[in-house]
Amino acid sequence: MAATGTAEQTEYLERLTDAGLLIPSGVPGVYGRGRDFEEVRLAFDAYLSRQREPGVELMSFPPLLPREHLEAAGYMKSFPHLAGTIFAFEGDERSALALQERVVEGADWSEFQRMSDVALVPAACFPVYPAIASRGPLPAGGAVVDPGDAWVFRHEPSADPSRLMSFHQREFVRLGEAEAVEAWRDAWRDRGLELLRDLGLDARYDLGADPFFGRGGKMLVSSQREQRLKFEILIEIAGPDPVAVASFNYHQTHFAETFGILTAAGETAHTACLGFGHERVTLGLFKRHGLDIGDWPTEVRQLLWQ
Amino acid sequence: MAATGTAEQTEYLERLTDAGLLIPSGVPGVYGRGRDFEEVRLAFDAYLSRQREPGVELMSFPPLLPREHLEAAGYMKSFPHLAGTIFAFEGDERSALALQERVVEGADWSEFQRMSDVALVPAACFPVYPAIASRGPLPAGGAVVDPGDAWVFRHEPSADPSRLMSFHQREFVRLGEAEAVEAWRDAWRDRGLELLRDLGLDARYDLGADPFFGRGGKMLVSSQREQRLKFEILIEIAGPDPVAVASFNYHQTHFAETFGILTAAGETAHTACLGFGHERVTLGLFKRHGLDIGDWPTEVRQLLWQ
Repeated sequence: MAATGTAEQTEYLERLTDAGLLIPSGVPGVYGRGRDFEEVRLAFDAYLSRQREPGVELMSFPPLLPREHLEAAGYMKSFPHLAGTIFAFEGDERSALALQERVVEGADWSEFQRMSDVALVPAACFPVYPAIASRGPLPAGGAVVDPGDAWVFRHEPSADPSRLMSFHQREFVRLGEAEAVEAWRDAWRDRGLELLRDLGLDARYDLGADPFFGRGGKMLVSSQREQRLKFEILIEIAGPDPVAVASFNYHQTHFAETFGILTAAGETAHTACLGFGHERVTLGLFKRHGLDIGDWPTEVRQLLWQ
Repeated sequence: MAATGTAEQTEYLERLTDAGLLIPSGVPGVYGRGRDFEEVRLAFDAYLSRQREPGVELMSFPPLLPREHLEAAGYMKSFPHLAGTIFAFEGDERSALALQERVVEGADWSEFQRMSDVALVPAACFPVYPAIASRGPLPAGGAVVDPGDAWVFRHEPSADPSRLMSFHQREFVRLGEAEAVEAWRDAWRDRGLELLRDLGLDARYDLGADPFFGRGGKMLVSSQREQRLKFEILIEIAGPDPVAVASFNYHQTHFAETFGILTAAGETAHTACLGFGHERVTLGLFKRHGLDIGDWPTEVRQLLWQ
């Protein structure tokens, strides 16, 4: 949660800002994107769409979801520090006046906000599980869902341009029998690595773990690693510490039990998801090939813009 | 804020859900979108991009912005009932355990959330003003900015499928001298009406007003109407009460004064924005032409998908 970054991070952020690729908002981790940044991001998104296997169902979800879904899936237990909940005003005219007085004074007006029924989406796949569960059992062979490029939120204000509070994830979600789901996850991990290397990125994969909260979280990390539930693809962006640009996650029956997803045979389904972090891939491409898209290698441009 | 809609709204919502166009989340006003819905929405978005005048600057912003910007622009004074602020956890392990106990009990855990520095974007144009202000005075002739299709939030849970809490706005923003800005707004109002009528929508424009809060708000509405600051394009969707699918707003110097935007001559700039509500236009098209895109009139399909 460092408000100041390393010299390397600060320098890369300044270069990105000067080139108009990122537009600082005044809050760390919240940036507007300039034309070229968004053009690369959308081209990468389309590149991923072209790799999608046939028969995938497309859905699209807003950046917020029922708070109840976060609670039910144990997100507040595992990642309370990353969640964002939405509060709103429900008072009368007198309260509204008092609120505005506080605003004018620059004082705390949080007491005039009440917790609403909605929270910010923490991962693009989250809204998929209850949506699929509501239809009844999966078809034979299970299902693959593509919820498109989605805005997700992590409350970790940082001066590192590769650690944003609000960013795009592109995920694919597989639901079905255990073996099929795990095999799909592994196949996509290998394919994902190839896709990123083809764009010139110096990527490698490794076992990964989620940023579970607190002391109890350390045990969860160990267990997740032992069971090889999470793989990540890593690249260097602003500094020598590699960051994850993609992750490949096997949830076993976690989400299916939470939301009640059954296979065609009536058993609890297994699920896996894979996700690419659009902004990190985009930042990685600008780092690798330079800030002027016109100078990028022809083969990379062709892959992105066909 | 009705949790139950009219018979007509409920019926249209059911038809949209049965057809897989909208996917209920369990919270009124928050829906996933099925493939065809999103296909139409994106086609409409591209249709708007093709109408854009040359020389427009493209930017893109996340669904959240610094809370300070809402406060500075007077949003909490005019629309406290519509704003969404983001709260997060900043406690230690003990607090995290207490939070999770409340979650398990189904009890209120809002006391474990603190107001963060960010809030939800209430209108697509909002982040544009501070971004432009940070560059110094406008070039001669001013500027036009297209912040793309953006997620915006209004805290008004409703059973009417045309009143969403989280939806896309596509706005264009004009900044410059008073006469140029107002003329641009009026030209786009006429062009916007034509664009929507070309798609078969029974659209008309009228003077409009923002949903200002409380008794004081009534005076603001009168003043806004008298000064002809806001026009809206209206269509019928689920029921006889028309809803606004687009609005054309002249802000005079409101945003320029708030964020410090100057013309090339060093005067306080004037601004205007126009916005289309993507989901409402999409719902209107499904209402007008039927739920099966394949059956839509050829001329409408050609305009949308060229």
